[in-house]
Amino acid sequence: MSSVDEELVRLLREAPAPDERSRRAVADRAAQVLRPAGALARLDEVCGWLAAWQRTERPSVEHPAAIVFVADHGVATEGVSAYPSEVTPAMLHALREGAATAAAMARVVGAELHAIDVGTGRPTGNIVREPAMDPERFARCFEAGRSAVAGLTCDLLVLGEMGIGNTTPAAAVAGTLFGGPAEEWTGRGTGVDDATWARKVAVVEAARSRVPSGAGPMEILRDVGGAELVAIAGAALEARLRSIPILLDGFVVTAAVAPLEVAVAGSLDHCIAGHRSPEPGHALLLSKLGKEPLIELGMRLGEASGALAALPLVRLAVAAVLDVATFEEFGLSR
Amino acid sequence: MSSVDEELVRLLREAPAPDERSRRAVADRAAQVLRPAGALARLDEVCGWLAAWQRTERPSVEHPAAIVFVADHGVATEGVSAYPSEVTPAMLHALREGAATAAAMARVVGAELHAIDVGTGRPTGNIVREPAMDPERFARCFEAGRSAVAGLTCDLLVLGEMGIGNTTPAAAVAGTLFGGPAEEWTGRGTGVDDATWARKVAVVEAARSRVPSGAGPMEILRDVGGAELVAIAGAALEARLRSIPILLDGFVVTAAVAPLEVAVAGSLDHCIAGHRSPEPGHALLLSKLGKEPLIELGMRLGEASGALAALPLVRLAVAAVLDVATFEEFGLSR
Repeated sequence: MSSVDEELVRLLREAPAPDERSRRAVADRAAQVLRPAGALARLDEVCGWLAAWQRTERPSVEHPAAIVFVADHGVATEGVSAYPSEVTPAMLHALREGAATAAAMARVVGAELHAIDVGTGRPTGNIVREPAMDPERFARCFEAGRSAVAGLTCDLLVLGEMGIGNTTPAAAVAGTLFGGPAEEWTGRGTGVDDATWARKVAVVEAARSRVPSGAGPMEILRDVGGAELVAIAGAALEARLRSIPILLDGFVVTAAVAPLEVAVAGSLDHCIAGHRSPEPGHALLLSKLGKEPLIELGMRLGEASGALAALPLVRLAVAAVLDVATFEEFGLSR
Repeated sequence: MSSVDEELVRLLREAPAPDERSRRAVADRAAQVLRPAGALARLDEVCGWLAAWQRTERPSVEHPAAIVFVADHGVATEGVSAYPSEVTPAMLHALREGAATAAAMARVVGAELHAIDVGTGRPTGNIVREPAMDPERFARCFEAGRSAVAGLTCDLLVLGEMGIGNTTPAAAVAGTLFGGPAEEWTGRGTGVDDATWARKVAVVEAARSRVPSGAGPMEILRDVGGAELVAIAGAALEARLRSIPILLDGFVVTAAVAPLEVAVAGSLDHCIAGHRSPEPGHALLLSKLGKEPLIELGMRLGEASGALAALPLVRLAVAAVLDVATFEEFGLSR
């Protein structure tokens, strides 16, 4: 195992366990409020999950933050996307100016939005024939993700991404981590045609076949991933160490954090899947990770949009436990 | 056909068509904003739907309102619920005092909540052996629903219900309107055991077998429905006449409005299904009505809770079209 993989395992093993006492306190209250026990099903669990990771019996979503990591990909030159790489810095600008979809959605849900450039105009290696990045760049990107989270004060973290071509490295990472036909991990991304999809499958297969057998999950991420994927993995690790709950966005984000779960089972317990996108690899990956998303509306944008759409459900889950009277408080017997 | 059915058909035929020009304007803008066309899928459609019924190119969800109609049911004496009828007025009180689940959720999403009593302590007839109500009570309940909506100023209406035992009349109404085995329309409601479920199926079958063949949808609703179901049908009609978009809650609400669609196809085009509950009859009924819900989280409370959980998605759908820059506005070519 590489030293980065060993270091990841060490950090993950030292990470704090969730606060099960707070989770139980929420479950107890949820069973006592003015409704049939279990009637809100998943929402009660979400409130308990939030309590466990915020380490309080009174969880809240008052200061959510979204980080969108942005980067370019050498593999874009293989013609795997419907858009040119020039779109990446333009969207970074649009995210920062508040003009992009995720920015508009963040305003609605009251989340602060940070768009962090980890590689626009500095594309990674073309993963068909070379590693996406060397160990030094990997370390810088991973650290960029960690410090982005370390510098935040938030009660719920949304992770998102933007980078033309990035569903290709996402498919390569997920496909290498979990195996299975490249076709099953490869989707239409922003909307490619049949010929482009077939080329994309071949690219994913070629990238995967380059990865040395026995490579650890961090090595896989470095080899066939991308700069924003690495930063997202770093952000998810830092959040895990700080016990900050995360709402994951779509396929790219889920593929980026999957190496943590492969390294140490349970490492993504602080993460909920915000949504399930139509990318076939996303559904497959979520099932591998045992994550059931909150919503499924055919969204396939990225940028954190799917997770931001799900965020109000977390807030509602909290209110439905903490702000509803118990039978006793309301003077009723069950 | 009964005179109430004839009157309903007449009103529905006079109802305004949706404003397709505004829907198209939204679709046009959605195709020009800074993302791949169609990337938000359903959310773009939701924004267009809202525009069509609000009759504006700039729809909004600034003043949403939720109405929860509350009533008791004679059929509760058949032991079809896990709870006694005394819970109904208590929950009416809790809704009004802000202590109930829907009240807490309404506060989070910024919706005003109205809990309207159309029959607590005055149970309808036991539908196993007699009509739920006579034509006079039907007319009063229907009118109560209509005036509740007529008295509102809102840009989005949420319909909900509370009434111990009311998944039984809901199953009876839906099963009579659409046919098929009573078992398929009958679920666990607030959580009944196997023996109670079997009794509930028999009750639904008995109620349905009483309905004269050839009865129109309004007659069916009067015969085997309930007071809050009738009020909800009236509310949905009034909203249709006023072109007010509706978010439907769960099985009971959907069963209550289904007679409108049966009377005149398209009469529920102003309604979106907020969620799909685990009641088997709800999924079946939504498929009969051609409605795909926004969320599915296992919620089975009623009170409007499922629709309130979905409401932020409508608001996000609007922002994702109106508050995102177009390529042109942002100075980019496609």
